[in-house]
Amino acid sequence: MFQSVPNVSEARNEATVQLLSDAIASTAGVSLLNVSPDVDHNRTVFTFVSESADAMFQATMAMYEAAVPRIDLRTHRGAHPRVGAVDVVPFVPLRGSDMSECVSLAERVGESVAQRFGIPVYLYEHAATADYRRELPAIRSGGFEGFPEKIADERWKPDFGPDKVHETAGVSVIGARVPLIAFNVQLATDRIEIAEKIARSVRGVSGGLRFVRALPIRLTHRGIVQVSLNLLDFRRTPIHRAFLIVREEAARYGVEVLSSEIIGLVPAEALYAAAEWHLQIENFRPEIVLERRIAQLKN
Amino acid sequence: MFQSVPNVSEARNEATVQLLSDAIASTAGVSLLNVSPDVDHNRTVFTFVSESADAMFQATMAMYEAAVPRIDLRTHRGAHPRVGAVDVVPFVPLRGSDMSECVSLAERVGESVAQRFGIPVYLYEHAATADYRRELPAIRSGGFEGFPEKIADERWKPDFGPDKVHETAGVSVIGARVPLIAFNVQLATDRIEIAEKIARSVRGVSGGLRFVRALPIRLTHRGIVQVSLNLLDFRRTPIHRAFLIVREEAARYGVEVLSSEIIGLVPAEALYAAAEWHLQIENFRPEIVLERRIAQLKN
Repeated sequence: MFQSVPNVSEARNEATVQLLSDAIASTAGVSLLNVSPDVDHNRTVFTFVSESADAMFQATMAMYEAAVPRIDLRTHRGAHPRVGAVDVVPFVPLRGSDMSECVSLAERVGESVAQRFGIPVYLYEHAATADYRRELPAIRSGGFEGFPEKIADERWKPDFGPDKVHETAGVSVIGARVPLIAFNVQLATDRIEIAEKIARSVRGVSGGLRFVRALPIRLTHRGIVQVSLNLLDFRRTPIHRAFLIVREEAARYGVEVLSSEIIGLVPAEALYAAAEWHLQIENFRPEIVLERRIAQLKN
Repeated sequence: MFQSVPNVSEARNEATVQLLSDAIASTAGVSLLNVSPDVDHNRTVFTFVSESADAMFQATMAMYEAAVPRIDLRTHRGAHPRVGAVDVVPFVPLRGSDMSECVSLAERVGESVAQRFGIPVYLYEHAATADYRRELPAIRSGGFEGFPEKIADERWKPDFGPDKVHETAGVSVIGARVPLIAFNVQLATDRIEIAEKIARSVRGVSGGLRFVRALPIRLTHRGIVQVSLNLLDFRRTPIHRAFLIVREEAARYGVEVLSSEIIGLVPAEALYAAAEWHLQIENFRPEIVLERRIAQLKN
């Protein structure tokens, strides 16, 4: 089974989000599992799966078809960094598919998006064509507004498409990666500098947890700030450890955690691990979960 | 689907535990999901399921057949209270069966156990024949050693079988109930009076959480004590709240929680709730669990 989790730069126009949902869901052989719009980010995360690489390709192209004429990054405002109307399109192998199939799928989609829409495409993570452009933050730095200058640099020539940013749709980052958890923590403060300090302390690149990315984000509608986290390998850097650091760093500035939220879907295993840790369960194994044992009987 | 979770007064004799497991597992149509022996308790909890009430009946009788000649309560020692060789046999409705079917099953098993083995049987919870004998602690008070006197009392005449305690197998408590979580918390102390105080503060009957039963237990082999909890309705009194009270009460005496353990199986929902609470997830719904969404596609 293949999974894709495209991040699209629109959440405030509900009609557009609905059209994109319909474009994905109406593709034969594809199941749209989740739609997570965030109006402060002005960004929507779609989660869909299929047993067929062809169906994944068709659904992704249908989504671009719906998105490109309707999203204009020149007037797009949102708290989350972005370089494209269809900003990031990762393909993720679930059971029964492997990473190399997802890499092929990313290449096929990338080539077609460049050809059909004239959008420059960068391949990332397992699909990357060079080490320095493997990670999303490196490709995305500068943002849509800075990309006309960045793309002129020989090192940032796109993998597919023209050496020129698409006027309204920017560029697209397409690739193959392992499952990740998108997890945001809301703070009981409107001071963005506190979210910045916390993000710096928790993310791997600045000395924090190895498989965590973190960004400070201002949630204008709610009048608070947020630390937006990507957990790149939840088995090695579990969700509860990232949360613990955010909470303790916030406390150091006298700030409470208001809540957290999952964007898209979360593997059951990550929640079990959090429960196990919190409750200090000494004999936890997935086999002691009733539903799991019963599901095994059916197979 | 029917579930049964018999508690049997033997864990130290591994051959006997194996024979009981085999007796259950070899019954056609029955799946043995879990076996949890505890040598300090000298008690083993079996979990098995079937789509067929007949198969549940056969498996339970096969288990008695194996247990009755091999367990002698006169020489049985263990930290957990008990009144029978086969101490407690609850039937639990899972999806597709209802409580009234489990009550019928409990009555059928009760009558047959009394007839075949001459063991006095008490029906409990939803199968109880009077309010004062609905709850397990009321029936079990006095223990095996006190039961010859108790059974002579007209109020404690058994529901099936003779008015005389079986010499080696004691009495059996058989009934129908909602799913329960058996959850033990180990303390970093060997002082049983601290476990007693904590048990008193957390259990519903003495002013604690409504759907919690709790007992102090000495774990001789590990040199520590334990608070042994039954969570009778984990949706209303969640596992993490019971754990919180135990941990904070222990801290009040300067004692740390070493670990906890699940006996038998635990519903996924109870673990999700603990993760949600601990991580303060504001948008949690079971539908954001990846595996659950994928399982829904198959149905």
